Amino acid sequence: MARFNTKPISGARDFLPADVLRRKYVIEVIERVYQSYGFEPLETPAMERLDTLLGKYGDEGDQLIFRVAKRGDKLQRALDDNPTEESIADAGLRYDLTVPLARIVAEYRNELPRYFKRYQIAPVYRADRPAKGRYREFVQCDVDIVGSTSPAVEAEVLAAGAQVLQELGFAGNGADGFALRLNHRGVLRGLMEVAGIPPELEGVALVAVDKLDKIGAEGVEAELLDRGVSAQSTARLMGWIAGVPGDEIERIGWLADLLEGSEQGGLGVAGLKEIVSLSSHGPAAGHLRLDPFLARGLSYYTGAIFEIEFPGLSGSGGGGGRYDELIGMFSNKTMPACGLALGLDRILLVLEERGMFPARLAGQPQVLVTQFDESTQVASLRLAHRLRAAGLRVDLYPDLDRYGRQFKYADERTIPFALLLGPNELAQAAVGVKNLGSGEQVAVPMDDIVDWLNQRLL
Amino acid sequence: MARFNTKPISGARDFLPADVLRRKYVIEVIERVYQSYGFEPLETPAMERLDTLLGKYGDEGDQLIFRVAKRGDKLQRALDDNPTEESIADAGLRYDLTVPLARIVAEYRNELPRYFKRYQIAPVYRADRPAKGRYREFVQCDVDIVGSTSPAVEAEVLAAGAQVLQELGFAGNGADGFALRLNHRGVLRGLMEVAGIPPELEGVALVAVDKLDKIGAEGVEAELLDRGVSAQSTARLMGWIAGVPGDEIERIGWLADLLEGSEQGGLGVAGLKEIVSLSSHGPAAGHLRLDPFLARGLSYYTGAIFEIEFPGLSGSGGGGGRYDELIGMFSNKTMPACGLALGLDRILLVLEERGMFPARLAGQPQVLVTQFDESTQVASLRLAHRLRAAGLRVDLYPDLDRYGRQFKYADERTIPFALLLGPNELAQAAVGVKNLGSGEQVAVPMDDIVDWLNQRLL
Repeated sequence: MARFNTKPISGARDFLPADVLRRKYVIEVIERVYQSYGFEPLETPAMERLDTLLGKYGDEGDQLIFRVAKRGDKLQRALDDNPTEESIADAGLRYDLTVPLARIVAEYRNELPRYFKRYQIAPVYRADRPAKGRYREFVQCDVDIVGSTSPAVEAEVLAAGAQVLQELGFAGNGADGFALRLNHRGVLRGLMEVAGIPPELEGVALVAVDKLDKIGAEGVEAELLDRGVSAQSTARLMGWIAGVPGDEIERIGWLADLLEGSEQGGLGVAGLKEIVSLSSHGPAAGHLRLDPFLARGLSYYTGAIFEIEFPGLSGSGGGGGRYDELIGMFSNKTMPACGLALGLDRILLVLEERGMFPARLAGQPQVLVTQFDESTQVASLRLAHRLRAAGLRVDLYPDLDRYGRQFKYADERTIPFALLLGPNELAQAAVGVKNLGSGEQVAVPMDDIVDWLNQRLL
Repeated sequence: MARFNTKPISGARDFLPADVLRRKYVIEVIERVYQSYGFEPLETPAMERLDTLLGKYGDEGDQLIFRVAKRGDKLQRALDDNPTEESIADAGLRYDLTVPLARIVAEYRNELPRYFKRYQIAPVYRADRPAKGRYREFVQCDVDIVGSTSPAVEAEVLAAGAQVLQELGFAGNGADGFALRLNHRGVLRGLMEVAGIPPELEGVALVAVDKLDKIGAEGVEAELLDRGVSAQSTARLMGWIAGVPGDEIERIGWLADLLEGSEQGGLGVAGLKEIVSLSSHGPAAGHLRLDPFLARGLSYYTGAIFEIEFPGLSGSGGGGGRYDELIGMFSNKTMPACGLALGLDRILLVLEERGMFPARLAGQPQVLVTQFDESTQVASLRLAHRLRAAGLRVDLYPDLDRYGRQFKYADERTIPFALLLGPNELAQAAVGVKNLGSGEQVAVPMDDIVDWLNQRLL
């Protein structure tokens, strides 16, 4: 047989059990918290019609969509007749979870409640060039509220995100914690207006300002000038960037003064004040940080914009905002919406770097029931079933083998206890228990074994 | 804007929250039980290299693989040069979870424990013609043990499957229960041998016998004769089919006598006896039913074969067996393996038909916190956060709206209780609680609200 390439396909990953259990640990916290905020899960197919996907993510996005080829006669006809990228495919893999949400809202509008609060945690696919931390299949964790323009929605979404991070062990907004950077599209518009940037340059100016974290103030200044923003407007923007007050309360006053002459800016500041006020007694309080230059690519945000930051680490842990124009794309009507996407890979990386995973993860086997010989095999299986019925996670060594190999296997699986059940133990109605960490072995009466193990397993 | 087709793509399904919660309920039972048997989760990419997938499922299977088109220059070169189905694609969507398992075992053999006990619950993709109950994307729930030939493996896998069904509420092996049909490849070989069917006709004869459930004894007889099996051999087989004893214990003796002259048959009967004996004290006991004609397409089974049956319903709830030749396909070495796949869609259908879902599913919101006006908005958010911190699943009505609309929304979401917090309630340090089923409303002191709700929510 030819030697096959058995690596996962380029840009995708295999997750062996230890990885999966870490991922599940985080996903379970996310789901539990999202559910506690009244969100319910949605599932949509991995494949969508190609015309559902194309034209939604810009030209660059269209090129990143994995296309699924037509099949049978349809494919043959396409291949026979000047085939093109467009003609040979009829489906694509979902690129994000927002377009599927928009499709769902259009298709099931009569079945959905007045406010549709859904979360979806699912892989998405992008034919991007694979790189460190950039994958072609990765999981998105989206939570959105569709149907309300109330700032209570922003407050709820931010609180849910903050609570997820707190339950994962991130505390405060210092080096072990996280910050929720917060801005508003109106503030960005107002800044452009007051800086005297003409509408046709707003887009490129915002793109430049959005890179502050990556290229620094000098880089932003160079890009602004390079893109044709006037020296005067550039100087104003750079002055504001340098002059943002450090104190949160001062900052909002500073921003209100600065944007006094701009209607859009005033609406933005008012929106931010409401969100901060409604967040003041929930999990997001103390984590919010107004950042008047945060734009997050800005393409579709219409109101609040937010981003999760782990101080001292580059890259974001997730982000979101209000996007009132997007969800109605398939519905011929405007549909206000606001949401947050947590970056699972990024969060996993930070948890790993900071050693924040629990020592033993739910799902790992806790006990190995060994086998002595054929005469005790049924007794070993009975013991395993008894422990499982008591709620323990129990592996059974399948073969008749010497104890040394059975213990070695338990070690390979990092199982803490091996149970021995030979004729001696059976005669005494006892179980031998070997602690695989210490090597110590004790005999425990069969009637006490569940309690004994429960006291020693966390 | 053009009216888009917003239905899911042909053969795939959208799952709205009520559906997802039912699916999650079943999947959580499956995962919990699999983990209690010492299995750990594996995750592999949805896309595999096309040459990993092709040639593994027969010609018909190859045609059912969704192919993902090449991209950019590679695609252009393929399109310019006599493009074919093969040349335009380099990836495919996984067709099952067994080929990915085989790839994993080959790629990570040095990192995996001596016995690899994994489960994988994930969607697979088949470009089949969509039909009732046949989907192009559907979830498989596979559990397998790789690395041992011991019959304890079969016993464990069967016990795990039986326990999942029991925890879902299937009891006994009668009309409300389930049966585990059990056979062995050796028994099938022995029956063919003793019936005098030549090796070259064994395959077609087994395919015919395997259809007994679908086309009845007469249909099997016609097909056997049609496929060239001699009248004498056909008569023997039909006699056995009619003569299988009803009693389980008699059945194994009958089979042992019948297959006395066949070495393969004898090995099969001995294997079945061991599995039955090792299952005698676990959850599968009382559900096993020897079925000497069960073949399950037989393509790759090398030993035990099993299938879950819900009495009175056609179609199986899952199946599996031992397949010692398959997992080594990418490893250049034989790797014994045995597993079971539960049919999620089928199990969901039976639970639905029999009304076996819990009345309220985990994950649904339990309480709606309403809003009175702007002055009480922060108090409403605080109440919501307090209840969430106490472990409740709490929705918050986002807009300021009249109570009637807020109650209607709670009804739409089947939330049982709406909490009211206006100036009167705040002045009395109380919460109004409206039972949306009965319409009854009571005032509960703020300090007692968590206990009050916990007593009334299950």
